[in-house]
Amino acid sequence: MFGSCDYLGLSQDPALKEAAIDAIREFGTNTYGAQLLCGRTRLHDGIEAKLTTLSGKESAILFPSGMAANLAVISTIASAEDVILCDRTAHISIYMGSWLSGAELRTFPHNNVKKLEALLRKEKDKHRRVILVDGLYSADGDFAPLDEITALAREHDALVVVDEAHSFGAIGPNGLGVADHFGVLDRVDAVVGTMSKALGSVGGFVLTSKEFERQLRYLAPSYTSSRGSAPGVAGASLASLELVEEHGGDLRAKLDDNVRFVIDGLTEAGLNLMRTTSHIVPVLVGDEHKTVAVSNWLMDHGIFVGTFVHPHVPSGEGRLRIGVTSTHTQAECALLVERLTEARNKFSL
Amino acid sequence: MFGSCDYLGLSQDPALKEAAIDAIREFGTNTYGAQLLCGRTRLHDGIEAKLTTLSGKESAILFPSGMAANLAVISTIASAEDVILCDRTAHISIYMGSWLSGAELRTFPHNNVKKLEALLRKEKDKHRRVILVDGLYSADGDFAPLDEITALAREHDALVVVDEAHSFGAIGPNGLGVADHFGVLDRVDAVVGTMSKALGSVGGFVLTSKEFERQLRYLAPSYTSSRGSAPGVAGASLASLELVEEHGGDLRAKLDDNVRFVIDGLTEAGLNLMRTTSHIVPVLVGDEHKTVAVSNWLMDHGIFVGTFVHPHVPSGEGRLRIGVTSTHTQAECALLVERLTEARNKFSL
Repeated sequence: MFGSCDYLGLSQDPALKEAAIDAIREFGTNTYGAQLLCGRTRLHDGIEAKLTTLSGKESAILFPSGMAANLAVISTIASAEDVILCDRTAHISIYMGSWLSGAELRTFPHNNVKKLEALLRKEKDKHRRVILVDGLYSADGDFAPLDEITALAREHDALVVVDEAHSFGAIGPNGLGVADHFGVLDRVDAVVGTMSKALGSVGGFVLTSKEFERQLRYLAPSYTSSRGSAPGVAGASLASLELVEEHGGDLRAKLDDNVRFVIDGLTEAGLNLMRTTSHIVPVLVGDEHKTVAVSNWLMDHGIFVGTFVHPHVPSGEGRLRIGVTSTHTQAECALLVERLTEARNKFSL
Repeated sequence: MFGSCDYLGLSQDPALKEAAIDAIREFGTNTYGAQLLCGRTRLHDGIEAKLTTLSGKESAILFPSGMAANLAVISTIASAEDVILCDRTAHISIYMGSWLSGAELRTFPHNNVKKLEALLRKEKDKHRRVILVDGLYSADGDFAPLDEITALAREHDALVVVDEAHSFGAIGPNGLGVADHFGVLDRVDAVVGTMSKALGSVGGFVLTSKEFERQLRYLAPSYTSSRGSAPGVAGASLASLELVEEHGGDLRAKLDDNVRFVIDGLTEAGLNLMRTTSHIVPVLVGDEHKTVAVSNWLMDHGIFVGTFVHPHVPSGEGRLRIGVTSTHTQAECALLVERLTEARNKFSL
């Protein structure tokens, strides 16, 4: 299984399973209403408190999913008199939030800070400039240069929202994502994260200021008018945050070893890994039909990888998406490299 | 607890809890990716198969939430050359889906089929006319007149999407919602439902044609690029559908008895229940501060009800929202009527 986003293997951890089961026994299989009304348990409170402590941000607020969190944060932070400056390869939920906000949407080429700077200058008369980026790009595996982006934001009086869906828990000295990696978490206005990747559970969240959290809690439809996490899901999420607080460093060290092994092996095999520097390792194939054929051949030979083709990535940039986890054995990583080396020869990759 | 949307009490049912726990033991606390890639178990397949059998529609497709389902179905069925004709009091997620679709959005006054007909005539040159309504209105408690609406749709070559969030499981001879109540399920192009109300679990779904389901499965971001239900949630959902298939009729009969008792009691007490005909019983208060004061007084006297104020309902139409369930005892229903009668006197309602 090399198509997984369960980067620390926590979805199969006994501590998460038992916490989920305990929560179901105590609270049942659902809450009674939307979070604003009567849809929270002390587990939901505990998650927000733990996220606040872990991150050092003023406030945390829990959403049903990362997509729901992005819709909420973007459509609340930006409105018609503002401009959104968005990395062109950002996640679709960032676009959806932008469209819902009513703000003007301008995009810049992937990780091109020069173009971002030009846009910031050009849009200096807008009420607000809101920069939207992924921390770790889910189909490319590279980081946003948040050191440069947050510096530009400060210089040009812009707000920064970072979606750390694929990085929260897995990246940075404290596991808080790419902003943590660059040491600029205090310069990000809102961090969006999810429980559904490295944390082994489900649910999105936003780490931000008290003032903005309050706006989200009373006005964002994803919070006020959609059901929050079921008790079992909240139980698993809280247990996961506690586990990562204690053992995250060890898990990330194992993950990094596996990532190094896979990237080195595939690079040596001459495959095009695009710009990856992380546990997300794309292997560029190009043509869509060929991408599917390679993926199917790998599946027939015991290896599942993600198959990313248009419209989920640009046309002609079909790729295999490998998700390395901390629970892969070295034998499994070696088999992946071996099979992909065979695939390279067979399909002339 | 009279603020609950757990209309059949299923969130506390042992069968749902055990099914959720079994699923967690077998599959863990999360899946490995988005549903399109590797985020499904046989439980997810089972839910879609069961929904198809129960409803008699061609296909069912599962989403993380009802809101996610609405965003998906509306932004897939309508686009820039189309017009959306939407009941003004429809759920916010129907508006969000409409805004994302790029279609022109026109609204008609609540349940006003004359105005809907006028709009259908006026918009006859649009590529598609898409009518969007709730089956059961969540802050009003009344039904959409789907008999008349589906007849108009047929006459004017329009599509009909109905959000049965508050009605699926609870309304209709087969418990399939308001379209089932009116016997027009075959004339609705897409039914949106949720597990999170009468079904006691979490997750949205769409019942529709095979062709449209296929579009949703490959192109709707809520399906392709957001995590689906966690295994425990899927386990509870499947168990719930099985339970409702077997015992739904009995549960709905109990619910109807309680609804009758509460509506009769509150009507006799002279309270303004707006247009309710269902388990959602609004009590109109009007002024927002007064609405909150009455709600707090009820809470101090042992009764929790939903507090709906602007912007979630129109300004000056603040209301208490009572959710009657099949598990309320007659003593509980009698206490509700007694306390609300006291509140009427105390606050001059």
